[in-house]
Amino acid sequence: MTYVTCDLAVSVDGFSSGPRQRLDRPFGDGAVDVLTRWMIETPDENKAELDAITAADAFIMGRNMFSPGRGEWDPEWTGWWGEDPPYHKPVFVLTHHERDSLEMRGGTTFHFVTGGVEDAFGRAREVAGDGRVSIAGGATTINQFLTAGLIDELRLHVAPVTLGTGDRLFDGVPPLTLEQISGRTASLVSHVTYRVVR
Amino acid sequence: MTYVTCDLAVSVDGFSSGPRQRLDRPFGDGAVDVLTRWMIETPDENKAELDAITAADAFIMGRNMFSPGRGEWDPEWTGWWGEDPPYHKPVFVLTHHERDSLEMRGGTTFHFVTGGVEDAFGRAREVAGDGRVSIAGGATTINQFLTAGLIDELRLHVAPVTLGTGDRLFDGVPPLTLEQISGRTASLVSHVTYRVVR
Repeated sequence: MTYVTCDLAVSVDGFSSGPRQRLDRPFGDGAVDVLTRWMIETPDENKAELDAITAADAFIMGRNMFSPGRGEWDPEWTGWWGEDPPYHKPVFVLTHHERDSLEMRGGTTFHFVTGGVEDAFGRAREVAGDGRVSIAGGATTINQFLTAGLIDELRLHVAPVTLGTGDRLFDGVPPLTLEQISGRTASLVSHVTYRVVR
Repeated sequence: MTYVTCDLAVSVDGFSSGPRQRLDRPFGDGAVDVLTRWMIETPDENKAELDAITAADAFIMGRNMFSPGRGEWDPEWTGWWGEDPPYHKPVFVLTHHERDSLEMRGGTTFHFVTGGVEDAFGRAREVAGDGRVSIAGGATTINQFLTAGLIDELRLHVAPVTLGTGDRLFDGVPPLTLEQISGRTASLVSHVTYRVVR
């Protein structure tokens, strides 16, 4: 059985980004810098949690996490992460627009999937086998997978800010029974990991 | 200066109660028992956080936290907590309906305040002086105090469940800058304390 994890940095009120995500503001408007401050300013303190984010055999992400563009692809755009993205495995990007796979350095290949959540999940599971698939975000994509009952483990990284608007975790997701597996408070973030009980 | 704290047990999606709060379901519908499981099943493990909830010199709560009734008062109703409520100090209850103060055993006196948030806050501050006022809940009342900029310290007790509906912390509150003061993960709950930056 594939084990499906999911990491998301969120505000205390559950937003993973503000409104109007775009090239010069990938997380949108508002005090969104706080969401990732712990990663940038205190990476050593949060090494275990940061390492775990990219410790999967395949990844799935939404189009909006891969690209600031909407609509047809700009073939020049190869993601936010430079030539050697941190995934080092296949990454399945949900999109409505076909595009050839994109092989990066270090083992990351972006595959563009137009068949929706189940299609992406099937392809990622085929790669991961009994290993791990990570639903990499953003909140809208994670909500789709939570609603479909496909996530085993939800790892939240809660940053000290409220945003009030943007993409919100759990929006439209039916109530979930969770089991708290672990958690830890670092200087700039509270980590909590839940198992989704099915 | 009075220091204003606030404790709230919430679901991971920020709800402090489900819909339709009533006499036989004080927290309303849904898996709301999870919100208080940590208090009931693991009080020793959470003694510090539980003690802190009632460690103030005056308290303010919403009508819906004091009573399942709405509208005119039932004079027989003296709160959910029996003859000796855990507050042992003056408790100012926000209401639209006048009622004489209610002196309980152990030092708790419920005062019914019809002049709104500022009125209740003024009276509680007069009692507390340089001590502490606790905004005891529920979410709707806390949201009013957050919006008014009156809360110094927000202590959340996050239980492993999502509710999806009910009274939600931060609803209608403008974005807040927070400073994470402390936090701790216990078996059935994650505690996080924030200072509200003004």
